[in-house]
Amino acid sequence: MQEPDAATRTPAKDLAELHAAGDRVALVRAAAALHPAELGEVLAAGDSDLPALLLDVLPGRIVGAALAYIEPHYRSALLIDLAPARIAEVLRAVADDIATDVIQELPADIANAALTAMPVALQRQVGRLIEYGPETAGGRMTGQRIAVAPERTVREVIEFLRSLRPDTEQPFDVYLTDSANRLRGVLNLRLLITAPPDAPVGELATMDAVSITADTDQEEAARLLKRYNLLALPVVDGAGRLLGTVTVDDLLDVLEDEATEDMYRMAGINVDEDLRGVGRSVRHRLPWLVVNLGSATLAAAVVSLFEDTITRLALVAAFMPIVAGMGGNAGIQTVTIVVRSLTLGRITPRDAWGVMRHELAVGLIIGTAIGVPIGIIGWSVQGSPALGLIVGAAMCANIANGMVTGVAVPLLLHRAGQDPTISAGIWMTTFTDIIGFLLLLGLATLFLDTLL
Amino acid sequence: MQEPDAATRTPAKDLAELHAAGDRVALVRAAAALHPAELGEVLAAGDSDLPALLLDVLPGRIVGAALAYIEPHYRSALLIDLAPARIAEVLRAVADDIATDVIQELPADIANAALTAMPVALQRQVGRLIEYGPETAGGRMTGQRIAVAPERTVREVIEFLRSLRPDTEQPFDVYLTDSANRLRGVLNLRLLITAPPDAPVGELATMDAVSITADTDQEEAARLLKRYNLLALPVVDGAGRLLGTVTVDDLLDVLEDEATEDMYRMAGINVDEDLRGVGRSVRHRLPWLVVNLGSATLAAAVVSLFEDTITRLALVAAFMPIVAGMGGNAGIQTVTIVVRSLTLGRITPRDAWGVMRHELAVGLIIGTAIGVPIGIIGWSVQGSPALGLIVGAAMCANIANGMVTGVAVPLLLHRAGQDPTISAGIWMTTFTDIIGFLLLLGLATLFLDTLL
Repeated sequence: MQEPDAATRTPAKDLAELHAAGDRVALVRAAAALHPAELGEVLAAGDSDLPALLLDVLPGRIVGAALAYIEPHYRSALLIDLAPARIAEVLRAVADDIATDVIQELPADIANAALTAMPVALQRQVGRLIEYGPETAGGRMTGQRIAVAPERTVREVIEFLRSLRPDTEQPFDVYLTDSANRLRGVLNLRLLITAPPDAPVGELATMDAVSITADTDQEEAARLLKRYNLLALPVVDGAGRLLGTVTVDDLLDVLEDEATEDMYRMAGINVDEDLRGVGRSVRHRLPWLVVNLGSATLAAAVVSLFEDTITRLALVAAFMPIVAGMGGNAGIQTVTIVVRSLTLGRITPRDAWGVMRHELAVGLIIGTAIGVPIGIIGWSVQGSPALGLIVGAAMCANIANGMVTGVAVPLLLHRAGQDPTISAGIWMTTFTDIIGFLLLLGLATLFLDTLL
Repeated sequence: MQEPDAATRTPAKDLAELHAAGDRVALVRAAAALHPAELGEVLAAGDSDLPALLLDVLPGRIVGAALAYIEPHYRSALLIDLAPARIAEVLRAVADDIATDVIQELPADIANAALTAMPVALQRQVGRLIEYGPETAGGRMTGQRIAVAPERTVREVIEFLRSLRPDTEQPFDVYLTDSANRLRGVLNLRLLITAPPDAPVGELATMDAVSITADTDQEEAARLLKRYNLLALPVVDGAGRLLGTVTVDDLLDVLEDEATEDMYRMAGINVDEDLRGVGRSVRHRLPWLVVNLGSATLAAAVVSLFEDTITRLALVAAFMPIVAGMGGNAGIQTVTIVVRSLTLGRITPRDAWGVMRHELAVGLIIGTAIGVPIGIIGWSVQGSPALGLIVGAAMCANIANGMVTGVAVPLLLHRAGQDPTISAGIWMTTFTDIIGFLLLLGLATLFLDTLL
């Protein structure tokens, strides 16, 4: 099928109609027949009592299949109201990494009750995975993996896979391990299927496979996977023993979450902010605005130093938001490029001087391009060429200031081991506000007699 | 191997040493022995004459393999100085979609000369792919795909794959097509390898496979792939005939590029901005700053209306940056969340009223939390409770204004078919500047006699 057009038919609409008609049997049948991704969307929609009903009546296996397609941070919220035994039933049907994530996010009492109701093997596996930090490769990996000895032939390995019946919805590679379970090589399925049946897999496999340790940061794992264009990465312990695998679909979520996180951080928002719950939104956003308040108060204090100048030449106040604001706008462009380039590894702190020189040149050119028209406006409003010169010069200098600060601040934060995404913007705008006001009001004060 | 620690050894450093020592033979041997991803990094580093040398002396096949790992927009820049025949030699070694991208980005004369030097089959294939827009599924797809009739057995298909020797570095599925080449189903390799050898593939395959048409936007293709956790998507024409496939590694780039693009757009930067070339950076950033200049001039004009009030009460000017700036800071948080949620499909315009009510509530609470301390400062600096009230009230109202405008502007732009990422921020800050100044200076003018 082609992707159905949203306007003509949506699974959510179909189910809502059956639900409204009270036809419980048809509803369950229709829900169970959906693609798990579509059922996942219906369950996550949460704007009626339909998800709760479906969570109660659908077989655990079907809810579990849908759970894999629901955004990670909604999964536990969805299951939290179910009985622990029912949660266990659903989690039996999902991969161990998803089960672990859900257990980790549930309140301790519910999590423990659900764990107790699970089969012992899954309990033990979740217990192992839960040891790893949630943002590490260990926290993202599945313990399910397929390992064979390098001496086996292609035919033997294919027969072994047929007998195993691994989850064919997941991408998987075959790993070669020695008798101590140390990772020796990796064989992708595409190679396995096209190789001569009698070849020993050890001769086909990549024997210096890229691997990561369980404590590697998830974003680093995602970058590595992307760098080598892989579908899955083996995860090993400190001694090189195979622990599990992380797959591209998990790390796709990681890359997208990190991008969202970076955007949110630049605006000072908690990444869990999802426009649900006024109290939560206030808690997530207020701290950052309080920090901004400190910066704004500092800028206001600078302005108040020039009260006398402003009293005598009120017009200069009208240019304050232009000079400070445009410096900030120019600086935020630089901050955005530098922060994103650091994240993507396109620049390193070693490039600092080159980037700084580049931004200074760009800043002086753009500063002139913006400063000249502003200067002409400043000249024309009161027929004072001196006011025009002062406004234009302050504008040009503050734009160059914004761009140079926009390089220096993120690189210094990065060097100090801080995440520049979070606070580079506020530091930079603090500088452009204060320097902008100092330049404009300071020059106006110096030349006040000429200006009046 | 574990991922080598960057501090201890880097391929770039090793090669640079051999290059400095003038040992050409050892250099070529070491470069050819690298993982193509690592060679790609050396070639893209561009800070010495090493990449140019390697591009000249390495076998075309090895340069081609590395090219797949280089960021798409650097590829053509890397090849542009080579002779057309050499470009053709390199492009013979890459997938047809990469070859097409490179040809598309080269200047027309070089592109034509390189095309002419290619084998006819590749020429024809590039000619076909070049027809599709570069940001569509057609522009991202490879024409290489494996199609079989549904009646074939698993064993026959595996034998067919062995005889084909497809590129095992790429993820691939087997597609089932009818005699008119219309897509009937899809069979993933994992299923193929674990299925009984004598089963007809038609019985195993997913017969209502998700597919996309060639003109589908690449971001939509990426979302679909992610939604259904797929590794590859078949691309069809309007009549459902199979044209090619797009794979997860291409779409990973798409998702990451789109995230970068969105971040850059919010700051008004062209996505091609990469801190190389002063003139280019100026061209990429100046237009946006000129738009901002218009907005800032408007705000300044509002301030100039109150020249008389400012002359008589210069202190009020010190509160201008706080009231306008904090409204903008609060608003940019909302804009970021709303724009990102629209991109990720977490909210739709139908949620407008709910989100608006939510932000109004959050805005009034945060506005009060920020307005009260600002009001106390306003009171204390001149012992005037009236000034405190005016400053606090203007602050609270402008924060609520920023948050409500932060919802309304992106949703209205979205509804008007505009991309809210680009201009939502500037519209919102124009509002918070103007409304902030009007509130603060307007209230101060109304109650000027009480204040003095």
